[in-house]
Amino acid sequence: MTDTPPPAGIPINPLTALFEPRSVAVIGASQNLHSIGGRPIRYMRDAGFAGIIYPVSPRYDEVAGYPCYASLAEIPGPVDLAIIAVAAKRAPEVLEACIAKGVPTVVVYSSGFAETGPEGAAAQARLAAQAKAGGVRLVGPNSMGCMNLHNGFLATFSTVFERDHVAGPLALVTQSGAYGSYILAQGRELGLGLGLLASTGNEADLELGELIGFAAGNRETRAVLAYVEGLRDGEAFLASAQKALEAACPLLAVKVGRSESGARAALSHTGSLAGTDAAYQAVFRQMGVVAAPTVDAMLDTARLVQSGFLPAGRRIGLLTMSGGGGVLMADDCESYGLEVPELPAAVQVRMKEVIPFAGVSNPVDFTAQVLNEPERYGEFLDLMLEHGDFDAFIVFFAHMIGYAHEFGITMAEKTVSAARQSGKPFVMVALTAGSAAGEILDAAGIPTFQDPSRAVAAVAALAHYAERRPKLLTRFEETAALDRSPIAPEPVATEFESKAFLARHGLAITREAAAGSADEATARAAEIGFPVALKVLSAEIQHKTEIGGIKLGLADVEAVRAAYDAIEAATGVSDVLVQEMASGLELILGLKRDPVFGPMVLCGLGGIHAEVMRDVALRHAPVDHATAAEMLQDLAGYALLEGSRGAEPCDIQAVIETIVRLSHLGTRAAWIEELDVNPLMVGPRGGGCLVADALIVRERTPDVSDPGSAENL
Amino acid sequence: MTDTPPPAGIPINPLTALFEPRSVAVIGASQNLHSIGGRPIRYMRDAGFAGIIYPVSPRYDEVAGYPCYASLAEIPGPVDLAIIAVAAKRAPEVLEACIAKGVPTVVVYSSGFAETGPEGAAAQARLAAQAKAGGVRLVGPNSMGCMNLHNGFLATFSTVFERDHVAGPLALVTQSGAYGSYILAQGRELGLGLGLLASTGNEADLELGELIGFAAGNRETRAVLAYVEGLRDGEAFLASAQKALEAACPLLAVKVGRSESGARAALSHTGSLAGTDAAYQAVFRQMGVVAAPTVDAMLDTARLVQSGFLPAGRRIGLLTMSGGGGVLMADDCESYGLEVPELPAAVQVRMKEVIPFAGVSNPVDFTAQVLNEPERYGEFLDLMLEHGDFDAFIVFFAHMIGYAHEFGITMAEKTVSAARQSGKPFVMVALTAGSAAGEILDAAGIPTFQDPSRAVAAVAALAHYAERRPKLLTRFEETAALDRSPIAPEPVATEFESKAFLARHGLAITREAAAGSADEATARAAEIGFPVALKVLSAEIQHKTEIGGIKLGLADVEAVRAAYDAIEAATGVSDVLVQEMASGLELILGLKRDPVFGPMVLCGLGGIHAEVMRDVALRHAPVDHATAAEMLQDLAGYALLEGSRGAEPCDIQAVIETIVRLSHLGTRAAWIEELDVNPLMVGPRGGGCLVADALIVRERTPDVSDPGSAENL
Repeated sequence: MTDTPPPAGIPINPLTALFEPRSVAVIGASQNLHSIGGRPIRYMRDAGFAGIIYPVSPRYDEVAGYPCYASLAEIPGPVDLAIIAVAAKRAPEVLEACIAKGVPTVVVYSSGFAETGPEGAAAQARLAAQAKAGGVRLVGPNSMGCMNLHNGFLATFSTVFERDHVAGPLALVTQSGAYGSYILAQGRELGLGLGLLASTGNEADLELGELIGFAAGNRETRAVLAYVEGLRDGEAFLASAQKALEAACPLLAVKVGRSESGARAALSHTGSLAGTDAAYQAVFRQMGVVAAPTVDAMLDTARLVQSGFLPAGRRIGLLTMSGGGGVLMADDCESYGLEVPELPAAVQVRMKEVIPFAGVSNPVDFTAQVLNEPERYGEFLDLMLEHGDFDAFIVFFAHMIGYAHEFGITMAEKTVSAARQSGKPFVMVALTAGSAAGEILDAAGIPTFQDPSRAVAAVAALAHYAERRPKLLTRFEETAALDRSPIAPEPVATEFESKAFLARHGLAITREAAAGSADEATARAAEIGFPVALKVLSAEIQHKTEIGGIKLGLADVEAVRAAYDAIEAATGVSDVLVQEMASGLELILGLKRDPVFGPMVLCGLGGIHAEVMRDVALRHAPVDHATAAEMLQDLAGYALLEGSRGAEPCDIQAVIETIVRLSHLGTRAAWIEELDVNPLMVGPRGGGCLVADALIVRERTPDVSDPGSAENL
Repeated sequence: MTDTPPPAGIPINPLTALFEPRSVAVIGASQNLHSIGGRPIRYMRDAGFAGIIYPVSPRYDEVAGYPCYASLAEIPGPVDLAIIAVAAKRAPEVLEACIAKGVPTVVVYSSGFAETGPEGAAAQARLAAQAKAGGVRLVGPNSMGCMNLHNGFLATFSTVFERDHVAGPLALVTQSGAYGSYILAQGRELGLGLGLLASTGNEADLELGELIGFAAGNRETRAVLAYVEGLRDGEAFLASAQKALEAACPLLAVKVGRSESGARAALSHTGSLAGTDAAYQAVFRQMGVVAAPTVDAMLDTARLVQSGFLPAGRRIGLLTMSGGGGVLMADDCESYGLEVPELPAAVQVRMKEVIPFAGVSNPVDFTAQVLNEPERYGEFLDLMLEHGDFDAFIVFFAHMIGYAHEFGITMAEKTVSAARQSGKPFVMVALTAGSAAGEILDAAGIPTFQDPSRAVAAVAALAHYAERRPKLLTRFEETAALDRSPIAPEPVATEFESKAFLARHGLAITREAAAGSADEATARAAEIGFPVALKVLSAEIQHKTEIGGIKLGLADVEAVRAAYDAIEAATGVSDVLVQEMASGLELILGLKRDPVFGPMVLCGLGGIHAEVMRDVALRHAPVDHATAAEMLQDLAGYALLEGSRGAEPCDIQAVIETIVRLSHLGTRAAWIEELDVNPLMVGPRGGGCLVADALIVRERTPDVSDPGSAENL
């Protein structure tokens, strides 16, 4: 929660200043109130901004009725926030003035920085350094500004505010100014109350992640909408997403730049980092972010949040005036993972007594008969409320409650009273534009959709959110308790060393030993027990199979000796690893370091499944046990682990534990760039699992004296 | 094409009568013009129906200003179409009167038939038989009626016509009356011209498939929208879909009843057949049906067709005022399978000279700079038209052309002239409601969407349609030339017989022979060549592996003898099949008989892929070679056929030929209920493929004397 700004004179938190400044200086103010330097002053004036507005420009005495100051220094009182609306080349000197004045936060409109190429990027880096040195937080450059409609703080030059907007409980944080404006305009058409806005611009300092957290903490905010092109600071995003989840403030996000041409355009547009889309999707899922496939879908979900629509779970009651509409909604519910449980048989019988042609199982089809007997709707609805166990209701009235005046009023009033008395969330699907029924529903805050599929999609987004939230909060607790102390780099150049390292950190590996001669190999094999595998042991060789460096299933001393000779002949290397033969289902596990989010852990079925079918599950590390279990369940081939086709069930618990431990390694050993366990051999239930081969790639250290050394790790 | 109705007195085609009757009798007419028996008369009167309206009721002398007849017989002239709006129990006598009067076509509004249960279903069956015997075509019962807005023929009681609708080139054929009305209402809000309507009701006679074909053949129709709950006559649908495709009249369909609860509701709603959703999706794809995931999506696509938007292919030029909007549209294009090709480098350089900050590769981001220099939009657009190779353009203007009056007019006019001169289809994404720019675009027939993702989805639907249409027409030619003569049932109780049958019909099978003793088995093995497989041979045993009935890789006479003994001991059967050992990649092929569409052919990768991962492709049989190739490409594991992980590429051509021949069998041998080839062993390129095991299940014949015999087949 943001507190009320402190009284004038007392320093303000720089982030509080961003949405609740007591005084705003607009540097580069213009008497042209339709220009970038004039519009925010006019907007704030017209919106009744409660704080003090200080236009700053040497060219004018007044702007929009406010005294204009030739320079920031001449302003008599403190300035909580400064808008910098000057040409890029003048921005540094203006920023310097802000630092001198003690301004805690600046919003830089000026364009001509990183978005224009290397020179602009260098200028932007200097600006960021200057702000940091001066202790000033900076939004932009190339930002469209910020706003807080709740207090008339309209520090933006977006043209959407040429039309009135209504303050409401939704916040928008956007990495595209122009598209952000469009979202505001689209939201306005849909009746959304977007009360808070931050356009992040080029993110020289404050970036999307941090701003999301701050918007989520604002006392007026009930949901944060984020338009994401690419994050610079994955950690800040993770922290903010967790904060939003803890505050029960849904974070709704549209992430663009998923495709090749989209990423190409995003790169030229914002120059943001190119973290993989798979990593974003994984993080969104782990953090309870409501990822929307389209802006429309995000706005639909936001509309529900604004209406206070918060289902406790996924059990949906469907009522319909049209059998066809019921079928369609039931389909959509199932395809979005909602449940449409049947009503108890006795209730179905009672409904059939009332309307013999009705559909009574759920969807409940009260048919056009209600046009003749409007009270039937209420009877059916009450029966569902009383005897069904539903978390939310979707009611389809087609065009009728909009077209038939009296009927519409009756139906709308019944719906409103049922919603109030039951406390259950309702969504209507109907055409109500301009009708009395529409007004009644709107006034009661019951959202109405035209398209049933869109209604179901939005309900599903929030139902899944509601169901996952407590689970995710529990998971955070498990990972919060982790030892996160760094693990120092260790030699892991060979399979032998890599597996030894994994064993020291709690992963079960195959019994094995190194050998430098055929005699030694046979001796080790006898100790380990036959059959064994022999593998060439060399830091230079990563793909052992292709060069004849692996011999499997060696049943006796003779076979080991022959295999040793063959491997030595094929590879020219006399060191081998003697390893027990492990059996079971082959899985692969791995760690990767994402440029945005850092350590990611993955799992998949071995063989062709991961490589050809791309059947892998990815998560941000560390993961808790429930998340590791979810990763396995995500695999198309999960049934194989459960023991399909008559096979024994695998030791899934052992795999989960292994994934969890591996993910902890990813968090603690930052020097691991990539780690492949391939295969992990999984035994039957209770039989554990063994790392049968592993390869660790250490972080490349570009400043090392031997430029080739990193390749050798 | 429907011709103009013949002059009065000359008999009319019953289907022509459905949309273009010269005279309409409304039996059960009412002076209450808001009742089911009054509304169609009022609607037709108010819409200026050109034909003669005959209200029929013994209770009135006139209805809505028209003379009312006590009975059908009293009507002086011929009646092309009769609306039956009486209670269900009176419907048979009224139908009899229609037959006596020589009415070619009736539309039955009456409810209380199959939708109410077994008794109603029996009454409906009698009504259908009566109509058939009398030579009358019948729509309904429980139909909401038909309409043709082009001639004021509003033979429906849908309340949506309480508001004006505009005639247009779209036809709607719906299996739900109420949901059909809603689609009409939604379409009206979107400015769609839905000119033709048929509500199929319970489909006692005329059903969806046939009506789609007739609607597609109407001279006014440019697209048919279909709301599908379940087909009764798959063949009629296939024929109509082909007719629509040949006429370049897109058939847009929403199919509901996909989910468990949806199918449950559909069954109770219409009592239609429960063909599998996978079969519908396969048929839609093969017939070029534009399957829409939601009604909104269907209406969006219809809006494009109505505007004459017809891209020649999938190459999309994107222009945007917002970098973010460009990224979003590029993403959507790729996810919907559209191409966003880059502009030539020289053009990019020229654009950069004009606006240094512009995005120039495609999407082309002309930036907010056009607010200062509006002519830049035209320059960029002309460059794209001249030097790019695009099939269609999507232009994102955010809210600006709606908010900024003069600017909006300039941009809209330039877009209209570019579209006209180039002949290329354009779609705008913008908020234009109530603006001058919006009017200019609407008048020029350039469709505008608010949400970019919806615009891209609709463009993609038509682009794929346009690209697939000529290919599908070619495919029809290949399958049209097929020999479709029936193949008489043959004995196929065992694997041996099944494979012999397949071999006779052109499929390559393993070399093999039956043997009744160990000596015979070794002799056959020697002829075939080692190694061989031995399999128990019995019509009683279908799952051979589970009971120890299969021994593989028998390398010599001793092994065969031992295997024979083991199989005989395990199964008690002394007949075995001696078969060559085939090697290669394992596929499965199959035939299934869908209750709606009849023969379906499927393929998948063997082993766990088909069974556990459900990675199979399905099509209606027969298929041509291109479709068979497409089936293989649909498989997630297709890369295995192409030779992934260093393996040799498989003989894909041989598999395609095998699928084609199998599909022909499905068409010709109607007695095959199900056929499994598992596995098909596929050799390296040029090495062919072999059916290594097959099982054929013959159609169950319930009227056969021995009730158990079908199970034994």
